Amino acid sequence: MSRISGPTVRRLSHYYRVLQEVALEGRRMVSSQMLADREGITSAQVRKDLSSFGSFGRRGLGYPIDHLRTEIRTILGLDRRWTVAVVGAGHIGSALLAYTGFEQQGFDIVAVFDSEDSRVGQVIDGRTVRPVSEIAGSEGWDMGVIATPVRAAQDVDDALVAAVVRGILNFAPRKLKVPEWVALRTVDMTMEFESLSFALSQPRPGKRRRERT
Amino acid sequence: MSRISGPTVRRLSHYYRVLQEVALEGRRMVSSQMLADREGITSAQVRKDLSSFGSFGRRGLGYPIDHLRTEIRTILGLDRRWTVAVVGAGHIGSALLAYTGFEQQGFDIVAVFDSEDSRVGQVIDGRTVRPVSEIAGSEGWDMGVIATPVRAAQDVDDALVAAVVRGILNFAPRKLKVPEWVALRTVDMTMEFESLSFALSQPRPGKRRRERT
Repeated sequence: MSRISGPTVRRLSHYYRVLQEVALEGRRMVSSQMLADREGITSAQVRKDLSSFGSFGRRGLGYPIDHLRTEIRTILGLDRRWTVAVVGAGHIGSALLAYTGFEQQGFDIVAVFDSEDSRVGQVIDGRTVRPVSEIAGSEGWDMGVIATPVRAAQDVDDALVAAVVRGILNFAPRKLKVPEWVALRTVDMTMEFESLSFALSQPRPGKRRRERT
Repeated sequence: MSRISGPTVRRLSHYYRVLQEVALEGRRMVSSQMLADREGITSAQVRKDLSSFGSFGRRGLGYPIDHLRTEIRTILGLDRRWTVAVVGAGHIGSALLAYTGFEQQGFDIVAVFDSEDSRVGQVIDGRTVRPVSEIAGSEGWDMGVIATPVRAAQDVDDALVAAVVRGILNFAPRKLKVPEWVALRTVDMTMEFESLSFALSQPRPGKRRRERT
């Protein structure tokens, strides 16, 4: 399997969701057209994506749903469970703790940290908030989430890296430095708004288009 | 100016942040190398991005910071103010209301809605929560944010479109349908986790790389 690009990974996530939906509808086969329609992309793009990891549909029949789900699950690393530590028990951290969808997909939030004395010791959705000083020298996790104010983000990042986290999801609007062996993803809300203001600033005719993640 | 791709828009947002930083450091000129280093991309990519809207640096001097900031601000639509309605006053909605960075960039959250009786009438960071039934026939906004549970998302989406919102930022993990003239962006937290689990599932040598948004 050749290297898969970021946008392709996102489309695989989308396909995986659609496959779950159509499986619930009692289907056994799915066409590239069906996968395409629900995503707003072309069926040629779907076939290209799926062929890149060696999955080929049969003309007139499509792809077997069960087989394709298993393949994509493995590629996305969803055939195992991942431990996650969340740092920052404010609004964003609490939103992550409250959402049960992560656990369903294999992501177990097993630790929560905060620097505020008032939050330490609180129990949020079954997890007790621990002081950030405990991150270093802790049990270690697969992934860490940074949901702190921006001024604390790099320190938390360093502490998580020291705790041998291999992946970091960052919600603080700051570019963080991580070693090469740590995967970093950033969710920047302001950037999302700017992407919209850009779209709304374009001349109207035929220029504005739906998102095609 | 030719059509600018989604990834390019994100890089423009990044450049805009770096330009704000280096301006604070008292500089007047910035090199493509400096913009590249702070973003972890190549200087060739920076020059390509900036030349695509007609901004050319001078060899050995770089780009004039003030001029470049003004240009990017205009392209991103940040030379005006945008009104935003947030639907859903839970964790995510509250996080957006609490963050002052949006206002600084020109995004004014002027209305908040929720379907829960217990939340309607509450004042969150200066805004009174109104019932979702008031979205239809309301004053209208440039953008709407959907921060509701997934089951409510499409109804809210329809109501926002009816209220002539032209851009929607969706935090509900569901693909929404919007008319062609509405720009839609989706922040899917599970997909961000899946992007990490994909990265962590790749063979180690030379395969794992930092994000290059």
